[in-house]
Amino acid sequence: MEAIHRASLRILSEIGLEVLGDRALDAVRGAGATVDRSSRNVRLDPAQVEALVATAPSVFDLYARNPERDITFGGTNLVFGAVGGPAFVSDLDRGRRAGNFADFADYVRLIGALDIIHQEGGGPLEPTDLPVATRHLDMYRTFAVELDKTWQCLGFGATPVRDALDVVCLIRGVDRDALLREPSLMTVINTNSPLRLDGPMGDGLIEMAIHGQPVVATPFTLAGAMSPVSLAGALAQQNAEALFLVALAQIVRPGAPMVYGAFTSNVDMRTGSPAFGTPEAVKGALASGQLARRYGLPWRSSNTTASNVVDAQAAYESEMAVWGAVMGGVNLLYQGAGWLEGGLTASFEKLIVDAEILQMISEVLQPIPVDEASLGFDAIADVGPGGHFFGTAHTLERYETAFYRPLVSDWRNFETWQADGSRTATERANTIWKRLLAEAVPPPLDPPALEALDALVARRKREIAAGA
Amino acid sequence: MEAIHRASLRILSEIGLEVLGDRALDAVRGAGATVDRSSRNVRLDPAQVEALVATAPSVFDLYARNPERDITFGGTNLVFGAVGGPAFVSDLDRGRRAGNFADFADYVRLIGALDIIHQEGGGPLEPTDLPVATRHLDMYRTFAVELDKTWQCLGFGATPVRDALDVVCLIRGVDRDALLREPSLMTVINTNSPLRLDGPMGDGLIEMAIHGQPVVATPFTLAGAMSPVSLAGALAQQNAEALFLVALAQIVRPGAPMVYGAFTSNVDMRTGSPAFGTPEAVKGALASGQLARRYGLPWRSSNTTASNVVDAQAAYESEMAVWGAVMGGVNLLYQGAGWLEGGLTASFEKLIVDAEILQMISEVLQPIPVDEASLGFDAIADVGPGGHFFGTAHTLERYETAFYRPLVSDWRNFETWQADGSRTATERANTIWKRLLAEAVPPPLDPPALEALDALVARRKREIAAGA
Repeated sequence: MEAIHRASLRILSEIGLEVLGDRALDAVRGAGATVDRSSRNVRLDPAQVEALVATAPSVFDLYARNPERDITFGGTNLVFGAVGGPAFVSDLDRGRRAGNFADFADYVRLIGALDIIHQEGGGPLEPTDLPVATRHLDMYRTFAVELDKTWQCLGFGATPVRDALDVVCLIRGVDRDALLREPSLMTVINTNSPLRLDGPMGDGLIEMAIHGQPVVATPFTLAGAMSPVSLAGALAQQNAEALFLVALAQIVRPGAPMVYGAFTSNVDMRTGSPAFGTPEAVKGALASGQLARRYGLPWRSSNTTASNVVDAQAAYESEMAVWGAVMGGVNLLYQGAGWLEGGLTASFEKLIVDAEILQMISEVLQPIPVDEASLGFDAIADVGPGGHFFGTAHTLERYETAFYRPLVSDWRNFETWQADGSRTATERANTIWKRLLAEAVPPPLDPPALEALDALVARRKREIAAGA
Repeated sequence: MEAIHRASLRILSEIGLEVLGDRALDAVRGAGATVDRSSRNVRLDPAQVEALVATAPSVFDLYARNPERDITFGGTNLVFGAVGGPAFVSDLDRGRRAGNFADFADYVRLIGALDIIHQEGGGPLEPTDLPVATRHLDMYRTFAVELDKTWQCLGFGATPVRDALDVVCLIRGVDRDALLREPSLMTVINTNSPLRLDGPMGDGLIEMAIHGQPVVATPFTLAGAMSPVSLAGALAQQNAEALFLVALAQIVRPGAPMVYGAFTSNVDMRTGSPAFGTPEAVKGALASGQLARRYGLPWRSSNTTASNVVDAQAAYESEMAVWGAVMGGVNLLYQGAGWLEGGLTASFEKLIVDAEILQMISEVLQPIPVDEASLGFDAIADVGPGGHFFGTAHTLERYETAFYRPLVSDWRNFETWQADGSRTATERANTIWKRLLAEAVPPPLDPPALEALDALVARRKREIAAGA
């Protein structure tokens, strides 16, 4: 751990990052970094990096429209986030298609309906049928109307961040000052690995930090492609890039809440294709959790798979990723539900299968109650050798809540399962999301708030159309 | 942990087990247990249980026909065993059918071909087309011919154990005395939970212990059915039954190698169906690992699922079971590959999917090398911001072995995958097992050994037919 730490500080001080945005460049220069304006190379002194990273909080809260949906990052808290960012969407009935607003709205409603998902992930799929310049407004309106849990905004540039701040202030009924005390918005900021921070991402990070809203600092270090083929090297580079983003946010606002994002996985060296849920990704996750804790930062990992279909591979790769994250002490499991095909597709059926996986993991993390009653000595004595416990008082008192009740899993015997159509988990998931979608009722929004929201969206669309 | 321990000792001393076999009853009475001959109830004093359990070794070796396949149980060693016991067999081409000898032979050959499987599991499926009385001889002959790794014998009665001892002595070229020093045979002995040890199982255990061969003492404690609905109670009962079997073996031969078997899962309380890979099973596994370590015994857990088909459920339940076992420090992951449908079916495709899961877990458990070379500072400096690592010397030196290469996983992009037939992991597993089976070459057996083996099997069949 210390060797990776030292290597990453050496990367920051001797190689440096290329920072494409002027605001970010000005910020780090103002803080005393070594900046080469022509190459836009930025080098940071190790002691300064450590001092800056130390000002980020270890634990912070994120406030939702519904106070019962507030979440805490850091410590032993575990937040499950939904998939964010895919360009495509798929389900068993309609196959794979380009992301569109109708599917976007359905998917967000399902995210709202699934209690195990604690946070929306910044758009579960890209509504490519909407104009690029104003798309984020339609997305935010959907989040504000459909969800009472926290959601993520888009981080590429100051504009989508500012618009999100307006929406979230309106919907929570607070001003920007209150937002500083009660962070309510989150986004993921990626480096363009290796060692580059582009302009929009730098601007988004700065805008979030100015307003004290938490950022998930996430390098995209695919070992063998965007980082060294050796896991230690990929982790050193990931760590350097993540610390750079944390340091930048602290320069903008000391104490700005940050999450250490880790996304180290590997590529298939035969084809260059990214691979997910691999042993290397699991080991990278376990190491990343240690690194984040070394810096006292909440840690983000992901539930990922490279599978093109919701099959056994999708499930075993996702499980690998989830267990690696959870055993590593993850605080935010981003991309927690719905991700398919290396993140290119949001799958309706995968959303349900992942919800089951997250529910199971959540249940695994509950302690085993052990006391006289639960030890059940009297029940064991009463039943005696060769009996069964189905009808005992000890069972009858507890059976309704004794065990996890699954969402998708079919535990019926082969004959019953066969008579009912021999359906796979993915086929059952298809039935489940359609039923959930039909039954879902978004949390009611006061008519005046909805009116104000619509007015805000309309005004911003006009302003953007006018080039404002 | 201590509360569960104390409850289990109280079960053994105040409730006791019903012991149906005379040999087992005589053995425990001879050792001073409180025995009621009419009810066949046996109670053991807590201090005696602890003293007996303490004589079982913490670590022991099991010797294979090929010394490179010898395995060690206990400590941080992890042995992956194949599925054992299903009555049915299935594959995508032929569907589900009764276990039969042709499938049995193919399945055993595949177990031999998969390096990640360290031990055969006592018959991957039941060859129901062979006569019951002599079936075990055909099974053992197949193991002896097809495998150079260790295999398990059948434990229901002294006869199948003795026949296995003869086969393994012949095939390893050793006598019974050598076998005492070099245990070469293993079996699973189950209690008939709750709290009953039947005659054949007791006889099998005793026969194994007499000859110093290791036994996996495994209660079948499905919470809500054969044990209390509360996990603490199920664990207390499991612990009582496991300790009873360990104590019995130590009475027969102090120092007889034993494995603490844990199989606590739960039933679906709506239908009574057994459920596997559940959160309760994972928590039961983690607790069982702690119990086994408390007694200094190697620990066995399982890779299980209730799914009727090799789908996402089969994969996520298996992953839950495997991670629970591995994070619990398992020493023998029995039923490690091939188990489907609550153990009723051995699936050819599941065998391959599980082999992938085991290979991945095995890779996860390898440490991350961290040194100057692997940290790759120079490579990161050379590539610089915005570049890629595909062609660097650092990559070229390492890429062939840098990452785990999957067996089933398809990492190609959607279009390539689709053009190649849009096949699921299960469909690809079907192709893989057929190719492996076609290519597999069993480890050569000396003609005289094969001749002696055939003569032994023929003689025993004659003796059994004659009622000997």
